[in-house]
Amino acid sequence: MRVQTEDFRALARQLDEEDELARFEQEFVRDDSELIYLLGNSLGRLPRATAQRMERAVREEWGERLIRGWNEGWIGLPQQVGNRIGELVGARPGEVIVADSTSANLYKVIVAALRLRPGRTKIVSDDLNFPSDLYILQGAVASTGGQHRLEIVPSADGIHGPAEALAEAVDEETALLTLSHTLFKSAYTYDMGALTRLAHEKGALVVWDLSHSVGAVPVDLARAGADFAVGCTYKYLSGGPGAPAFLYVREGLQAEARNPLSGWMGQEEPFAFGLDYQPAPGVRRFLTGTPAVLSLAAIEPGVALLLEAGVERVRAKSVRQTEYLIALWEHRLAPLGFELRSPRESARRGSHIAVGHPEAWRIAQALKAEMKVIPDFRQPDNLRFAVAPLYTSFGELYEAMARLQKVVEQKMYEKYPAETTAVT
Amino acid sequence: MRVQTEDFRALARQLDEEDELARFEQEFVRDDSELIYLLGNSLGRLPRATAQRMERAVREEWGERLIRGWNEGWIGLPQQVGNRIGELVGARPGEVIVADSTSANLYKVIVAALRLRPGRTKIVSDDLNFPSDLYILQGAVASTGGQHRLEIVPSADGIHGPAEALAEAVDEETALLTLSHTLFKSAYTYDMGALTRLAHEKGALVVWDLSHSVGAVPVDLARAGADFAVGCTYKYLSGGPGAPAFLYVREGLQAEARNPLSGWMGQEEPFAFGLDYQPAPGVRRFLTGTPAVLSLAAIEPGVALLLEAGVERVRAKSVRQTEYLIALWEHRLAPLGFELRSPRESARRGSHIAVGHPEAWRIAQALKAEMKVIPDFRQPDNLRFAVAPLYTSFGELYEAMARLQKVVEQKMYEKYPAETTAVT
Repeated sequence: MRVQTEDFRALARQLDEEDELARFEQEFVRDDSELIYLLGNSLGRLPRATAQRMERAVREEWGERLIRGWNEGWIGLPQQVGNRIGELVGARPGEVIVADSTSANLYKVIVAALRLRPGRTKIVSDDLNFPSDLYILQGAVASTGGQHRLEIVPSADGIHGPAEALAEAVDEETALLTLSHTLFKSAYTYDMGALTRLAHEKGALVVWDLSHSVGAVPVDLARAGADFAVGCTYKYLSGGPGAPAFLYVREGLQAEARNPLSGWMGQEEPFAFGLDYQPAPGVRRFLTGTPAVLSLAAIEPGVALLLEAGVERVRAKSVRQTEYLIALWEHRLAPLGFELRSPRESARRGSHIAVGHPEAWRIAQALKAEMKVIPDFRQPDNLRFAVAPLYTSFGELYEAMARLQKVVEQKMYEKYPAETTAVT
Repeated sequence: MRVQTEDFRALARQLDEEDELARFEQEFVRDDSELIYLLGNSLGRLPRATAQRMERAVREEWGERLIRGWNEGWIGLPQQVGNRIGELVGARPGEVIVADSTSANLYKVIVAALRLRPGRTKIVSDDLNFPSDLYILQGAVASTGGQHRLEIVPSADGIHGPAEALAEAVDEETALLTLSHTLFKSAYTYDMGALTRLAHEKGALVVWDLSHSVGAVPVDLARAGADFAVGCTYKYLSGGPGAPAFLYVREGLQAEARNPLSGWMGQEEPFAFGLDYQPAPGVRRFLTGTPAVLSLAAIEPGVALLLEAGVERVRAKSVRQTEYLIALWEHRLAPLGFELRSPRESARRGSHIAVGHPEAWRIAQALKAEMKVIPDFRQPDNLRFAVAPLYTSFGELYEAMARLQKVVEQKMYEKYPAETTAVT
């Protein structure tokens, strides 16, 4: 879809009327109808069903059932929720679990992958990967004996992932290629199947971070032949602040892959209390400690809504919405000095658009403080606007950009301090 | 205190009347007044204040404030809750954080400790340590290059920790001594100061798992000179099922200790998004990924109740209660074939008592199904009865043992299957 209009308000109304996902908006808590929330890629809105689920988890399951909660459902949550997420990303049942943080899970699968490729010393990633993923790679290399070295391939323009250079960097020395499927800054999305195939041709394994894809960008891990994947659940899945992450291990690798964080939940028989660790069959061996039940229980309702809506429909709306935003950028924002920092080609773009502006930080402050628009600011001068197709309307996008235009045209941002202080 | 009576019911009444902590019982949710819950060492009861806190965290902080929750408090929770727990265990502010699971934290501090003692190849622990701790040790050894070997010192009687043999096992080759302070089976409690001193004399570091001590057994990490510690928050702290664990690093080690799971929350400036990991100053470097806010927010109210009650008062009541249980065992249970599997000396005993019986599994089933008593069963033939001094009364202990007596005397357990199936 290319937007061919200058009456963006009328177009928004029309697109909202045609939107077959519009009914999902009421499934989410929205106490302030004026607030336009464009940060579903960072912390998804609270589903109404989750609020109810949490009350039950706290008052009934913990408060009344106490320890019996483990036998009555908690113990199976990591696999149960994992399998549901697996449906969103093309995994088979028994390939996904939910546990720990994305970073901890990344450490587990990276160390596991390196042990599956002894003698190979190179790990390849890119400089647009989420910094935490690079930090974890550095920690994994430093803590496992130091035999590996990282090759961080740079992006040419800071927007597009360096797919070709990555393919060249992966060679017979390479143990592992690890990338974010959709990049957190620009929303560039890699061709997972193509890169996985190229890596496999060289004998390397591939770890994908799906944090900025899951729930917004279709992923088919099985078809891509991906080896390992991790991803977070608090963005498009609406799992709640810091909700536990997921971890995928391809079935064919499960028997030989070893979890370095070999805790009792990944033990073959956790309640036999034997002294020697025997990994559980299947992906369960990648569990570690006791799962954080309250945070874990909050994940499923948001995933259920996405499954009900259907990944393809969610994606179709997401593409329409980011196209709409790009058209608005072209007509309204570019003349105000905003630079587009996301791919124009929708096939290579996730569910947000990034724009740069020298006053991005102060603009973000004004939008939040005076205009009831919540965008995302990322150092040094980026604004990100994310669409979460289950609860973002075209009307909101129109209105948010109109308010942004006003902030810039009227220089409303000038009274805000230039020094960045935000933590998120 | 040694109990000198045979009228245990009257004694219970008297002790409850004298109990200066009795008022705390109403601070916990108790929907079924008949139910006697003796598993506070596994999953603590729900504090009323926590139920309210969780509603606020879900509906207001997440539902209404959305991403702003991070700036409005979430981001500081790992340190804020950590410092409160630190007050319970004799740590200084800035020495404790809350993050991840006990097992994941144990992995972090073990690998950090091993890197602080290069060239030393031995790790010492005991066979009464929590199995998950041994599994993590095995995983840490296997994933960090395999230069280390574990020496697991056996207990002579399965009840008392082999303190003397451990002291002998720690030698100039030893990098690390790691133990549970209070053992999960027998409740035996080590002399933390003495063992830490002995290990330090040989140049080894010490990691303590405080899971079965914190909130029930006084711990003074600073006075003991402990190097690292971890512990869970869902037992006596009543932090909720699988609530995130805590991690302590002695101030003097913080600058040199490196977290192998070096994620963005432990980065010096997480929101600068630099590509190279620079550890934060202080214990914050042991954070990894985004904290599980909902589970984390549930921890503080239970900790606040314990601090209000005071560790020494909690301990005094705990000792009186386990002494009372042991006296009841001596007069009522021993004649029925129960064997005491906890230390008689209260200075070396935590907050539960373990008894063995050939029919322990079936007895536990009958207690739960017919007598509204929830004890803990641990393979192969152990029952554990824990006292949580903030909400366990002497009257409950009397009543629970009377019901247990009835189950055994009337052989009520015989109709239950002998094969163990429980997961907890």
